Amino acid sequence: MEITKVGIVGLGLMGGSLSIALQETSEDFYFIGLDHNEKHCQQALELNLVDKIVYTLAEISLCDIVFLTIPVDGIIAISKQFDTLPKECTIIDLGSTKEKISTSIPKEIRENFVTAHPMTGTEKFGPLAAVSGLYKEKVVVLCDMQKSGTHQQEVARKLFSSIDMKLVFMEAKEHDRHAAFISHMPHALSYSLANAVIKQEASESIINLAGGGFRDMSRIAKSSPTMWEDIFRQNKENVLEAIETFQTELKKCQEMVKNEEWENLNHWMNDANSLHDIL
Amino acid sequence: MEITKVGIVGLGLMGGSLSIALQETSEDFYFIGLDHNEKHCQQALELNLVDKIVYTLAEISLCDIVFLTIPVDGIIAISKQFDTLPKECTIIDLGSTKEKISTSIPKEIRENFVTAHPMTGTEKFGPLAAVSGLYKEKVVVLCDMQKSGTHQQEVARKLFSSIDMKLVFMEAKEHDRHAAFISHMPHALSYSLANAVIKQEASESIINLAGGGFRDMSRIAKSSPTMWEDIFRQNKENVLEAIETFQTELKKCQEMVKNEEWENLNHWMNDANSLHDIL
Repeated sequence: MEITKVGIVGLGLMGGSLSIALQETSEDFYFIGLDHNEKHCQQALELNLVDKIVYTLAEISLCDIVFLTIPVDGIIAISKQFDTLPKECTIIDLGSTKEKISTSIPKEIRENFVTAHPMTGTEKFGPLAAVSGLYKEKVVVLCDMQKSGTHQQEVARKLFSSIDMKLVFMEAKEHDRHAAFISHMPHALSYSLANAVIKQEASESIINLAGGGFRDMSRIAKSSPTMWEDIFRQNKENVLEAIETFQTELKKCQEMVKNEEWENLNHWMNDANSLHDIL
Repeated sequence: MEITKVGIVGLGLMGGSLSIALQETSEDFYFIGLDHNEKHCQQALELNLVDKIVYTLAEISLCDIVFLTIPVDGIIAISKQFDTLPKECTIIDLGSTKEKISTSIPKEIRENFVTAHPMTGTEKFGPLAAVSGLYKEKVVVLCDMQKSGTHQQEVARKLFSSIDMKLVFMEAKEHDRHAAFISHMPHALSYSLANAVIKQEASESIINLAGGGFRDMSRIAKSSPTMWEDIFRQNKENVLEAIETFQTELKKCQEMVKNEEWENLNHWMNDANSLHDIL
């Protein structure tokens, strides 16, 4: 059986968990890692997330498939550093916003790229956070696929299907707006909630009362500031629109409570309940 | 071994799960249920949550311990309908706000009452939602305990300890403010988030991308509007204060994104990360 060489640039939660997922398929892979964090390189080797560490993009570009599992600005920077790429090489970036990436990749290598966003993650980061099952039965959004080469499209479809992901196809622009509503703005809320409570004088006594609701709502406030700074930067306009839409709803709630419009409040909560039928 | 007669007024998630929890201890209990919803009475019997259904408060007040697991306004109304109570009878209400209850109970029977708030629940409701383990290792806040009789204090401590809860003692007024921050306001956020997304034109396509973050943050938006209307009503001022505190934080986030103050945003998210050390 042929061994597929997989490069992973960025040995963190996403890259590490991807290696675990691929190792759990019936295919044979050889994993080559690249990360500017030497400690993460060592941990990735010790955890068997990669078979070998390399230090240059030239070495990585000899792989059959290369995953870029680093923040968006890093993906854009790296895409400009590749010289020519072998025609059969497939580079799949897993950045959280897609439009800037999709339009920034140099024309000469655009067909080598597939821009994907797996809708999964945890609040943890680094190779020690890598877990089995992170991608299983989750959605992966494949963006602007018409810009990828036929071979690259095929590789990406086959690979994400092999780790049991649900493939969704979308324009990058549409993805970024959707992601702002379903992921980026909710992170802004979670960070705000955590800060609102932490900054209370009696914060410890308050947090001592936390039940499942607060735990769930504040979990993603533990996410990496570095990663989220990048996402908010890359998707600024959509995030601001989503925050404003949320603020309008919260304002409605606030006014109904203030004015004691209990029946309207009940109806409004009932509207929210309809999420139950969808999710 | 002596059998303790336990009355449960309100055969829903909380009352039903409490019966399950008590049945899992080594003590012997006989459960008597009361609920104005005839279907819930039948379901509670079928699910063995209660041994018998009664229809009057007079019958319930013959129990050793009576749990009031109904909304706050119902608890207040019922507390005024009890005539004199046997000196040894312990009535424990599990209402989500405590100050109005604590101050509304008629003086003659105040010592019979223990006002408690278990910091647990799910977004589901009704006797079919009752589950094992709902109370296990969760916090129960016991409020204004100095107003309860010595016997009643002892009964409540022993009983909540027997189902492995962590006892926290607090003034009712303090509890209500804390609960607004840790539970009530987060529910307002979750309802607002669900409505913000549902009302988008492409809502189904957006929700199709939901990962763990959105699932967690929108889960409690599926909670009962009837129950939450009551909580927002009972705890209006504290809820409004907590919402405003949250809005201030979200506004900060919004401004930092708008003005591209990435370093400040990073620090602010880092502040939120400190929740990790506490929760």
